[in-house]
Amino acid sequence: MQTITLNSPLDMHLHLRDGDMLSLVAPYSMEPFAGAIIMPNINPLVDNLEILEDYKSRIMACSKSAFEPYMTLFMKPYSREFLESARDKIKAVKLYPAGVTTNSENGVKSLEAIYPTLEIMQELGIILSVHGETHGDVFEREAEFVEVYAMLARQFPKLKIIYEHISDARGLRLVEEYENIFATISLHHMLLTRDDLMGEKFNPHLFCKPVIKTAKDGEALREFALSAHPKVCFGSDSAPHPKTAKESGSAPAGIFTAPIILPALVELFEKYDKLDNLQAFVSDNAIKIYGVTPPIKSVTLQKSPMRVPESIKSTDAETVPMMADKNISWSIKEIA
Amino acid sequence: MQTITLNSPLDMHLHLRDGDMLSLVAPYSMEPFAGAIIMPNINPLVDNLEILEDYKSRIMACSKSAFEPYMTLFMKPYSREFLESARDKIKAVKLYPAGVTTNSENGVKSLEAIYPTLEIMQELGIILSVHGETHGDVFEREAEFVEVYAMLARQFPKLKIIYEHISDARGLRLVEEYENIFATISLHHMLLTRDDLMGEKFNPHLFCKPVIKTAKDGEALREFALSAHPKVCFGSDSAPHPKTAKESGSAPAGIFTAPIILPALVELFEKYDKLDNLQAFVSDNAIKIYGVTPPIKSVTLQKSPMRVPESIKSTDAETVPMMADKNISWSIKEIA
Repeated sequence: MQTITLNSPLDMHLHLRDGDMLSLVAPYSMEPFAGAIIMPNINPLVDNLEILEDYKSRIMACSKSAFEPYMTLFMKPYSREFLESARDKIKAVKLYPAGVTTNSENGVKSLEAIYPTLEIMQELGIILSVHGETHGDVFEREAEFVEVYAMLARQFPKLKIIYEHISDARGLRLVEEYENIFATISLHHMLLTRDDLMGEKFNPHLFCKPVIKTAKDGEALREFALSAHPKVCFGSDSAPHPKTAKESGSAPAGIFTAPIILPALVELFEKYDKLDNLQAFVSDNAIKIYGVTPPIKSVTLQKSPMRVPESIKSTDAETVPMMADKNISWSIKEIA
Repeated sequence: MQTITLNSPLDMHLHLRDGDMLSLVAPYSMEPFAGAIIMPNINPLVDNLEILEDYKSRIMACSKSAFEPYMTLFMKPYSREFLESARDKIKAVKLYPAGVTTNSENGVKSLEAIYPTLEIMQELGIILSVHGETHGDVFEREAEFVEVYAMLARQFPKLKIIYEHISDARGLRLVEEYENIFATISLHHMLLTRDDLMGEKFNPHLFCKPVIKTAKDGEALREFALSAHPKVCFGSDSAPHPKTAKESGSAPAGIFTAPIILPALVELFEKYDKLDNLQAFVSDNAIKIYGVTPPIKSVTLQKSPMRVPESIKSTDAETVPMMADKNISWSIKEIA
């Protein structure tokens, strides 16, 4: 049977949530992956070291194998003294323009307000992670933010800026044009189109921000991922919500992909005959971009189908994964 | 208190559904409106006179005041003999390209297959009503259908063609360019943008087909409606679904607007200082376009707020209206 082994896969954009949901979903990321950038938009927000260290402990309590949570802070104006003390405990500070996604109501309203913080981050070598959307039309707001990325890149030329979960083909040029702009690409933005979301009926489990764009956008993203462009790396943006919230009159944004990621990535890269580039996309590029040394872990997948569960649940939480109740042609054989 | 009286308002695109849902929703249309074009996509489809007359009886059983249901047939190849016998019992035949909306899985796959039927309809003066969308990208499929409308208009120059629930500004030119193309405009396509649907969270009760487009599209539609352009008229496309279906993992398309239509239209036309044009938009234009003589009914609205209910329910059905739990500045005072 055909197999492939991935060394120390990394997920550079992950929402692990908290409480019952954390306990439920954490194993799906922490077992197959060697490490992940942990997003700070829990409640309360991760904006000081006490919250950060407590959250990290709750995450590590879910760990059964080697896994490094690369912690992040929620962007707000921070002092030099604080950032110096935080520097070794975080990998990035995450900027959410106010209100664009889950728990980002307190994101930064005026970018100028954080310029001094960005200046210090640049000096200290702390990465800036950005959810880049304006408050414009839902399908245009990422494209409208492209100029903001460019402006930040020019203003802070030594600051590493991560264009998170890029979904719009119009943004891809930034990673070519600006030395200090890098991007994460998610599985769902490569695999789905807005027709999958709402072409016939509407599937709230495929609703996320940035919202899934067109087939053409997906194709452009795949081109960068499949070629393992050195300035992009994998970030799942796996973002579970309770099934009851998703299937309501007001569905929050976020797609839960953790249970399917590695099999679906192998299936995708195999389909385009680019399996040789998967190791770089899912680990090596990130190691270089973020300057991390993840735990050694090897994950072997086999070409034997996996059936994605209809939902993932415990007695206290339930969430529906992408591709629920569908088959993927590859599955995880062994994690060592 | 400010009042306005509308004479014989007409809804030229209405889904009354059937069974418990029909009983629940019918009064919201049949009381304030003098008549409505009744869409045929119930189950089984309205495609013969027995089904049509039975459905009409079930509708009339809900009537408490003068109301004329203008019945329609679901498009398929029909014989001359049949269409001659149906002619006085219907107002239009509704064309759904296969699979684009609720119960349209049996719509017409090849337009050529219905050319003989269109030829006969043209001769007999039967109106063609069209849900015009291709199977392309969900936000492009109406624009992609524009050329099909134009082709039909040229091929059958004496056939009256209704461009139903126009939602894309790129289609509006058709009513200027082709003498035989007319359009219905819904309340929701004028009032909402896709950001209302999914700009923050996703609201399945605002999900419909054709899907709500951008602010710019809404503005262009409003221009035609507010000026009471003689080739457009009001068609609500009010299309209730059970609350449980809407708030599920697979939400069907359709917005239930019947309970709010006249107050919301008055509010809209007042906002743009075009109240003088509302009578034409909501009745007179339709009378001319469809050649109907509706029952005489006068509806007086007052500038006194109405609170839209959270949901409309009976013991057997429940559905959520647009603007649920919100205020509209006008309300119906009297129907005579």
